Amino acid sequence: LPSKLPYAGTTIFTVMSKLATDENAYNLSQGFPSFNCAPELTNLVADYMRRGFNQYAPMSGVPALKEQLAEKTASVYGVDYHPEDEVTIVSGATEAIFCAVTAVVQRGDEVIVFEPAYDSYRPAIDLNGGIPVYVRLSAPDFRIDWEQVRGKITDKTKAIMVNTPHNPVGTVFSKQDLGQLANLIRNRDIYVISDEVYEHIVFDGEKHHSMMTHPVLKERSFVCGSFGKTYHVTGWKIGYCLAPKPLTDEFRRIHQFITFSTPTPLQYALADFLKIPEHYETLSAFYQRKRDRFNAAIAASRFTFTPSNGSFFQIVSYEKITDEHDYDLAVRLTKEIKVASIPVSVFYQDRQDDKLLRFCFAKDDEILDRAGEILCKL
Amino acid sequence: LPSKLPYAGTTIFTVMSKLATDENAYNLSQGFPSFNCAPELTNLVADYMRRGFNQYAPMSGVPALKEQLAEKTASVYGVDYHPEDEVTIVSGATEAIFCAVTAVVQRGDEVIVFEPAYDSYRPAIDLNGGIPVYVRLSAPDFRIDWEQVRGKITDKTKAIMVNTPHNPVGTVFSKQDLGQLANLIRNRDIYVISDEVYEHIVFDGEKHHSMMTHPVLKERSFVCGSFGKTYHVTGWKIGYCLAPKPLTDEFRRIHQFITFSTPTPLQYALADFLKIPEHYETLSAFYQRKRDRFNAAIAASRFTFTPSNGSFFQIVSYEKITDEHDYDLAVRLTKEIKVASIPVSVFYQDRQDDKLLRFCFAKDDEILDRAGEILCKL
Ligand SMILES: CSCCC(=O)C(=O)O
Ligand SMILES: CSCCC(=O)C(=O)O
Repeated sequence: LPSKLPYAGTTIFTVMSKLATDENAYNLSQGFPSFNCAPELTNLVADYMRRGFNQYAPMSGVPALKEQLAEKTASVYGVDYHPEDEVTIVSGATEAIFCAVTAVVQRGDEVIVFEPAYDSYRPAIDLNGGIPVYVRLSAPDFRIDWEQVRGKITDKTKAIMVNTPHNPVGTVFSKQDLGQLANLIRNRDIYVISDEVYEHIVFDGEKHHSMMTHPVLKERSFVCGSFGKTYHVTGWKIGYCLAPKPLTDEFRRIHQFITFSTPTPLQYALADFLKIPEHYETLSAFYQRKRDRFNAAIAASRFTFTPSNGSFFQIVSYEKITDEHDYDLAVRLTKEIKVASIPVSVFYQDRQDDKLLRFCFAKDDEILDRAGEILCKL
Repeated sequence: LPSKLPYAGTTIFTVMSKLATDENAYNLSQGFPSFNCAPELTNLVADYMRRGFNQYAPMSGVPALKEQLAEKTASVYGVDYHPEDEVTIVSGATEAIFCAVTAVVQRGDEVIVFEPAYDSYRPAIDLNGGIPVYVRLSAPDFRIDWEQVRGKITDKTKAIMVNTPHNPVGTVFSKQDLGQLANLIRNRDIYVISDEVYEHIVFDGEKHHSMMTHPVLKERSFVCGSFGKTYHVTGWKIGYCLAPKPLTDEFRRIHQFITFSTPTPLQYALADFLKIPEHYETLSAFYQRKRDRFNAAIAASRFTFTPSNGSFFQIVSYEKITDEHDYDLAVRLTKEIKVASIPVSVFYQDRQDDKLLRFCFAKDDEILDRAGEILCKL
């Protein structure tokens, strides 16, 4: 069977998490919390299941969840989406991104992708016969040079994929970035596929600028989000896509035949939970404390870093410690000192090695302290 | 935004279920139980959630569930699949079918599809640039004429999609069907994508013949199944694909970037539940009683029918009652006499109207009785 994705091995997240388990290492690699979600949330699921909410949800999502999400979006970003026509619940942000790419990308279309890039973007483009066109962001600041992007736009450019707050590097779009992106696509037939799963995890008083907050971008964007990162339930795989009706219409035509719908009792529970703004309003502070705790724990190490601006990841340079390839180092650290991380080179097509590791700080304080302590010995 | 699936409106299942709700009708349209699943099953989910099983499951599924499924397959069908390499848990059989089609179908490949056909088959083929080649099965017996199939095979034929027990018509493959299919694909580069979600719902002492039970077919088949129909949890959207390692390798390469993984606590609960064979061993008898009850309730009506052989659907002919188009009749019955069904013409590309309606009998006895009573007045 000839492969359509010959370059795709097992994702690094699976590889490193498995190695961490096998080696009994502190797992700061794959992006998921080491702690549980709120018991109120799982109690709600249990309750809905008991009451019989176990059959098919509507294809586009449970109405209560779509409505709560639209209300949240209005109150947090001041932007209106029509819950019935412009909000779709899907099986995780990965499905949202796949459906959005499939909705817009025809064979031969070019899609601009910024590197470092999350690993599902390219396969989604490839499976649709599209051509990824890379714009490389570089250490240490990883900001987008919009003039460089302009130079990559051709008649075939059909979409631009963006990710803010950024995984793995933690950068956050500014209002100026939105303006620049809007200028680029204004008067062009280009869509924006925006991965905003870390929308509620932004630090140091900065704020998340969603694509939806710019009127030009809103009309052309598929804003993809997820409840997994916000409510500490990465394993529930409930995501969503917010997009104007014509975009949502095509998005749903795809989603309908890929997973059709998403687990009903989980959707109902999340709808109730969304009514309590406190949960997402306190999340940035919660993770900023974790970031600071981890960074304090490695302050005495020979790693160098700029504190992450958003997401639950911290990248660090090990330039002063060793010149090993980052993949080899990540494996070695997991085996020898029992701390697992993600090598940043995997987020580049050519495996460009900037001597960076990514640590996930969505972990219990003792894990952060203990891992930091060990890392200081390097 | 030009559509890739211009023919795809809202699925008939959504349309009729919504109409049934709006009209306060008995909903015998969409295929889902009107009753709840076993409380033991939801208790298990609640327990796993409480214990913290809320983060990412492994991409290919929770090991315990893959192992239990392989054990069940060995004990029910006497067929071995390797749980780590040949069993993949996905977000519903719809995702399984999409991933299997994507794994094998390249642009320009032909895929043989039998009509009446479930509505997700064609979009999956189209989104991969494949060409559906239809073989039409006809009332009243809807059996496959394998010589006719042979006539449709060309150098471009890449896959054959089969569905047994069949939705909507309830036919069940015989051992001879498997032999015929095997003869067709032997010495040819053709894969089988088999939708067997009703595997545990087969009547009158017949049995389900899975593609995996024929050695030639097993090597070429993606056997797609689901827990939704078996455990009365259609809304959980947990399905699976069983396939030899080379096929599974490519299947997972696709799945990894479409949904990545499937809700963790639901997988753990199902793994435990699979240990109790009684649940699936008694399912055929349970639904045969429902079939018989519904058929008895409409025995005095002017509908004619042959009892369904499998699935939880009964098709009936209304030839003696009216010559309306089946779609118009289904809508009218929902509105006027408050019984919702599915018009069988929607399962044909050209909407061929054989004057058939599909009723789902996965409903409480009172609903079956009451709906039957009303239908007798027609
Ligand atoms: C889907 S597993 C990867 C989780 C994640 O988002 C990450 O670690 O970057
Ligand atoms: C995915 S909704 C359709 C349910 C079903 O399988 C049917 O009614 O045929």
